[in-house]
Amino acid sequence: MSYFADLLSTLFERASSLGKLSARKQAPLDVLCRELLTSKGEVSGATLAQAVLNEYTALDDADKLAFFCQLRDEFDLNADAAKMALSVYQQNPDQKNYATFMHAVDPQRQELIRRLNQVPGATAQLVAMRQDLLRLAKDNPDIAIIDYDFKTLFLSWFNRGFLVIRPINWASPAHILEKIIAYEAVHEIDSWDDLRRRLQPEDRRCFAFFHPSMPDEPLIFVQVALTDSMAHSIQAILSDDREAISADTATTATFYSISNCQQGLAGISFGNSLIKTVVQTLSRELPSLSVFVTLSPIPGFKSWCNGRDLQTDNLDTGDLRRLVAHYLLNAKRADNRPLDPVARFHLNNGARVQAIHGDADISPKGKQQSAGLMVNYLYDVPHLADNHEAFATHNKVAASSGVQNLASEAIKQFQL
Amino acid sequence: MSYFADLLSTLFERASSLGKLSARKQAPLDVLCRELLTSKGEVSGATLAQAVLNEYTALDDADKLAFFCQLRDEFDLNADAAKMALSVYQQNPDQKNYATFMHAVDPQRQELIRRLNQVPGATAQLVAMRQDLLRLAKDNPDIAIIDYDFKTLFLSWFNRGFLVIRPINWASPAHILEKIIAYEAVHEIDSWDDLRRRLQPEDRRCFAFFHPSMPDEPLIFVQVALTDSMAHSIQAILSDDREAISADTATTATFYSISNCQQGLAGISFGNSLIKTVVQTLSRELPSLSVFVTLSPIPGFKSWCNGRDLQTDNLDTGDLRRLVAHYLLNAKRADNRPLDPVARFHLNNGARVQAIHGDADISPKGKQQSAGLMVNYLYDVPHLADNHEAFATHNKVAASSGVQNLASEAIKQFQL
Amino acid sequence: MSYFADLLSTLFERASSLGKLSARKQAPLDVLCRELLTSKGEVSGATLAQAVLNEYTALDDADKLAFFCQLRDEFDLNADAAKMALSVYQQNPDQKNYATFMHAVDPQRQELIRRLNQVPGATAQLVAMRQDLLRLAKDNPDIAIIDYDFKTLFLSWFNRGFLVIRPINWASPAHILEKIIAYEAVHEIDSWDDLRRRLQPEDRRCFAFFHPSMPDEPLIFVQVALTDSMAHSIQAILSDDREAISADTATTATFYSISNCQQGLAGISFGNSLIKTVVQTLSRELPSLSVFVTLSPIPGFKSWCNGRDLQTDNLDTGDLRRLVAHYLLNAKRADNRPLDPVARFHLNNGARVQAIHGDADISPKGKQQSAGLMVNYLYDVPHLADNHEAFATHNKVAASSGVQNLASEAIKQFQL
Amino acid sequence: MSYFADLLSTLFERASSLGKLSARKQAPLDVLCRELLTSKGEVSGATLAQAVLNEYTALDDADKLAFFCQLRDEFDLNADAAKMALSVYQQNPDQKNYATFMHAVDPQRQELIRRLNQVPGATAQLVAMRQDLLRLAKDNPDIAIIDYDFKTLFLSWFNRGFLVIRPINWASPAHILEKIIAYEAVHEIDSWDDLRRRLQPEDRRCFAFFHPSMPDEPLIFVQVALTDSMAHSIQAILSDDREAISADTATTATFYSISNCQQGLAGISFGNSLIKTVVQTLSRELPSLSVFVTLSPIPGFKSWCNGRDLQTDNLDTGDLRRLVAHYLLNAKRADNRPLDPVARFHLNNGARVQAIHGDADISPKGKQQSAGLMVNYLYDVPHLADNHEAFATHNKVAASSGVQNLASEAIKQFQL
Repeated sequence: MSYFADLLSTLFERASSLGKLSARKQAPLDVLCRELLTSKGEVSGATLAQAVLNEYTALDDADKLAFFCQLRDEFDLNADAAKMALSVYQQNPDQKNYATFMHAVDPQRQELIRRLNQVPGATAQLVAMRQDLLRLAKDNPDIAIIDYDFKTLFLSWFNRGFLVIRPINWASPAHILEKIIAYEAVHEIDSWDDLRRRLQPEDRRCFAFFHPSMPDEPLIFVQVALTDSMAHSIQAILSDDREAISADTATTATFYSISNCQQGLAGISFGNSLIKTVVQTLSRELPSLSVFVTLSPIPGFKSWCNGRDLQTDNLDTGDLRRLVAHYLLNAKRADNRPLDPVARFHLNNGARVQAIHGDADISPKGKQQSAGLMVNYLYDVPHLADNHEAFATHNKVAASSGVQNLASEAIKQFQL
Repeated sequence: MSYFADLLSTLFERASSLGKLSARKQAPLDVLCRELLTSKGEVSGATLAQAVLNEYTALDDADKLAFFCQLRDEFDLNADAAKMALSVYQQNPDQKNYATFMHAVDPQRQELIRRLNQVPGATAQLVAMRQDLLRLAKDNPDIAIIDYDFKTLFLSWFNRGFLVIRPINWASPAHILEKIIAYEAVHEIDSWDDLRRRLQPEDRRCFAFFHPSMPDEPLIFVQVALTDSMAHSIQAILSDDREAISADTATTATFYSISNCQQGLAGISFGNSLIKTVVQTLSRELPSLSVFVTLSPIPGFKSWCNGRDLQTDNLDTGDLRRLVAHYLLNAKRADNRPLDPVARFHLNNGARVQAIHGDADISPKGKQQSAGLMVNYLYDVPHLADNHEAFATHNKVAASSGVQNLASEAIKQFQL
Repeated sequence: MSYFADLLSTLFERASSLGKLSARKQAPLDVLCRELLTSKGEVSGATLAQAVLNEYTALDDADKLAFFCQLRDEFDLNADAAKMALSVYQQNPDQKNYATFMHAVDPQRQELIRRLNQVPGATAQLVAMRQDLLRLAKDNPDIAIIDYDFKTLFLSWFNRGFLVIRPINWASPAHILEKIIAYEAVHEIDSWDDLRRRLQPEDRRCFAFFHPSMPDEPLIFVQVALTDSMAHSIQAILSDDREAISADTATTATFYSISNCQQGLAGISFGNSLIKTVVQTLSRELPSLSVFVTLSPIPGFKSWCNGRDLQTDNLDTGDLRRLVAHYLLNAKRADNRPLDPVARFHLNNGARVQAIHGDADISPKGKQQSAGLMVNYLYDVPHLADNHEAFATHNKVAASSGVQNLASEAIKQFQL
Repeated sequence: MSYFADLLSTLFERASSLGKLSARKQAPLDVLCRELLTSKGEVSGATLAQAVLNEYTALDDADKLAFFCQLRDEFDLNADAAKMALSVYQQNPDQKNYATFMHAVDPQRQELIRRLNQVPGATAQLVAMRQDLLRLAKDNPDIAIIDYDFKTLFLSWFNRGFLVIRPINWASPAHILEKIIAYEAVHEIDSWDDLRRRLQPEDRRCFAFFHPSMPDEPLIFVQVALTDSMAHSIQAILSDDREAISADTATTATFYSISNCQQGLAGISFGNSLIKTVVQTLSRELPSLSVFVTLSPIPGFKSWCNGRDLQTDNLDTGDLRRLVAHYLLNAKRADNRPLDPVARFHLNNGARVQAIHGDADISPKGKQQSAGLMVNYLYDVPHLADNHEAFATHNKVAASSGVQNLASEAIKQFQL
């Protein structure tokens, strides 16, 4: 069972092959790409792929843009060939014509990206390449079209079945931990001491997804506080001088932060799987845990209020909690989904709005976005599937009766 | 660097999630597949995928065939929709129309297979599913069309960049070793004692490729003998009572067996990469190694002779060596590639025909296929790329002058 | 937490240092030993220690005997010096005189053995050396005196706190598994297939103790069957065609074999710790387990019967069970401890005699030693300490009321 | 080979057994110690040992002192019994009398410490106990006598053969790295950023010894800079903005800091072994390395100057280098060994004084102790044994001709 531990040879292999390959004489990037696409066999392929990746890494933004334009134009789908192959296939839908057509609708740039990925270590470089693409596409929207091809391949490569979950703790490697510090997006980690306070106490947990081809790069991670009851404020969780409780006696796991790490994987969702996997893992390790809940911000609340001329500064905590309940349950987008992005995420996972707390995040960001309030979304395993179904099909927002009452009161009080 | 060692949690996760998911109520397989394809979000998706895989595993061949027919017919490419989307895209090749068209030419069965793969452990089950498909397609050629979709996805998932190489030795787990015994295809391993003789001596090595999602299943492995000079016979290599030499002083690594393990990965080639990676690994570990060579059978030789009424039984070793040289260098298929499949493989990798030995494999199989002869193919790293290029482009067969002379003599002697 | 995984460097170090050291010029073993004892600093020490171990390994029995005689005579305790140092210490028991005396009573051979152990890998060689000593001492009882020094040091080095427990299963390395096959002492393992039947099913477990300095050598191991109820016969446990039960639902763990592996560690007891540690480990992993019991032979029973002219062949199973009960509870040695060695072991661990089964081991050995009967010793954690105390202090044998009744009946029936 | 990776079970076992044992009812520490010494079998032993360790940890200094007094007085060597046993042995030196005598000279406190060590995790606690002892003995010298017993046992337990070397790098666990920060004794590490600068660049290495029973506690570590030539100053090595060189091309390994970590292991020397092992490890990994050298302080230089009224402030670098040469080569203790402790350490290891540099450590500590100078001690593997021998036997100080010349000049210039 511990056999997989032995990835030494892999790392060794990577070092050595990279060394070997980088010795190759250089050619212009567009030439290298053409050679890679026409090379037969893996011999020259890996060398060429490495050369392309090396060249790309050294480019400035102008040249990266040119490279993406080459992908868009030169290595585009050949629509005429596709049309012809489709005609042939429709007349005679046999195995050979199917393969010919499918091949015709595989854009050369997808094949190029697949061939680049044959080099060990290439996956992380391709993720970085897509990050460049998304960044440059903001000012150059005409290259955005090729993101479809990156995303299609990444959806296949970053399939849930390929991901591994690992605990992150104070015994984790420093080079992983410094990435946790850098990537934490919800409640900033301001020092190694701060990090230790979040990882070392026995009532704190952190888990991340990794892809085997990017072992040094977490994809997403979640931080969990084990508590006696549902956490009411982030200040209590992150307090410097709190006493840790025994993990064995904790009844509640509060997910208080979840952060995506890779901008180059935008649109490829891991959060739902991560939460569910962590719920399973913790349930098994700590049988006394019975409640799994988030402590989440309400990032759209304040601007929604502003749009309605509701002055949150003049409202007391009770008023605010009622308004948040209404906002979460009733404020909708055009497609009839909740306005709040965090609510959409958790409701779509099958969670329900459980409780709303005032003075729950008194940081400047917390006050500015959420007027200092936070929400518990409850992950009640037996109801997740039904809640999700009702939400996915009928946009039904699951909520505790307490929150439903708050929302009703808000409608009356504020005549919404 | 040893962080990846910690895959405990993964294994744990797999066990637990499988347990959880299998509890779900069952439905007919075709219904489950439809549900899986229309499910939104990962919540119900993973449960459904697990249910599909569970159901499939329990099917008999008749029902598996029905399932493959469903994939072929119900979850086929919609050619009409593709045609329409293509027209729209050709009129206005913008980002949205590109995505719509690409989506239209993605057959539903590919999406289904991708969704099945989101369950941890699914990859091995999908490889087994393709093995069923290839087996059943022999008698039911009309389902072969869907193999294109399996193979396309597997080419992406089993990308060289995702594979890891691991040494196989006498300290490897027994459950891996029993698969080595089972999968050895060239020179059968007849017992654990035989296996130990091939793995334990310090002048023997074995390496395999694994995919991180199938950690218990080798994909391909190669067996290597470290020697003082090029090995001349398989009997000497596999002898029960030979003395091992010191690995540090060996000059030659002889690759005497390479076996593919997964019938469900037919057509997805790993051999070339494996040999090259092993050459690199051994070069680095044992600087005194300077010659990398195979000791290979000539599986097509005897039947080629038979086709020409050449009675090998009447020929001496010298005659046979000359004939083999001619066969390897000059006997070609219609496409002008060598007739011998093993020769095609190594020549395409950039190796050259180095030497030919008589009485080199005196086993019944060796005599029956190759008249007891074997060949050394030389992997001379600096020349691999050029040899490959010349072979790929001009079908040029690289050979030592000795072998070339043998072939010339054969032409004269046998008036070929 | 997984940091310790990284013992690569250690193995590497061992290989390299051994290589370096073995290059040293050789000298006679007695000269090397003297040099090692007088060397200052570790520089020359490790080289000399390696040379001594290399020389020793190459000796035949006659020369080993001579070496042990040197240890006995030349590197003996200096009793006169000890006497003088003791007088000085008694007159003035200060720190310096204490150290001088303690040093005087440390025989040179103990210091020699300690210095030999500074070489990585030496511990296993010293264990093998003691195995030689114990073997040769049978015919040469005058060298037995030096075993005291080996045993004293080994008791310190093989302290329970230094041992690690590891599961042995079908994913364990083959070189460990072949030792399990070789060392199994109770119910012989006759092939790799037999081994797989004992390790692979989910209702079977095996655990071993290892010492970090001998990672390739199990010290002791125990085999466990997970069952629905207490096992009544070894045939049922080892049956080829039984159905495995689910580990999660098992209520009972039956320890059916425990084997010491190292003759060179004779008299250093690991069995009690191993059983207790395995009980803890299994309790935690499988909460449904509530009964921990052995299925043990009664090795002294048949010869005890023979000594009393009790013809077991003429007795039925009921008679035999009653006689065994009497034998276990009432047959004593001169020191008032049970005659049966297996009983002594488990009773001293705090277990109790729980049940006795006929036709429980119908192998030739089982019939010959134990008349085919076996015993369950129950490890009831809450009572272990008290049972042990009563046994250690008052020789009280703990037994179930059923077994007590059987023993009473035997006394009446056989007028014992 | 990677089997040892699986120490999961160990850690698990530790946690669980500690939990179990700590539940036991408490008794006064002296009572527990007596019970532990008289307990038979391991059953109660481990529980008692755990209880003693738990009790001890909770003591204040006064009670710790009382505990050490109990060890000294109640669990002392029985000199009368030893005398009697010695007489008997001298009259009849047979196996039984030898054992009786050896047992009689084994102080009860040594047996107590051995029994305490049977609990997993106890070794670290016993090391901490000796740290307490050494600290308290400063004001209570009459307890120092029992340190002999701790040290004797630790010398056996921390035998070189039991230690493992591990690289420390930026992928090491944070809880190990924070100890590196804390324990660095030579050139303070002032932040995690500073640590990263010392560990992450490819031309920096760090290695530590660990004991398998204390996997979370480094015993000693050394920091190494890989360079093109011998390092002349610590400022250059620790500079914030230097460019790393390629490890593959480095010719010189400079050991610039070596720190012991455990005060409780005072007097048990690991430094020599560590340096030699690291030299071997680096030689093998990086064949281009040919020079192994330290960059060391001269901690006794300034106070030696002060004792001779040599005003270092008035001297130029040339003068200072000559004076240091003289100090290292000629300034001796009463036992004719060098006055400088760092010189004694490296010379005893077989190194030689290679070069002396001014302005080499311009930190306050460097100026205050060593007048800003540092020394290269050269570890020239082929000469280590002879240098050590000459130093150990004749106090001969090995030095380069350059340094010898400097020393001669100093004698003339300063009329020393």
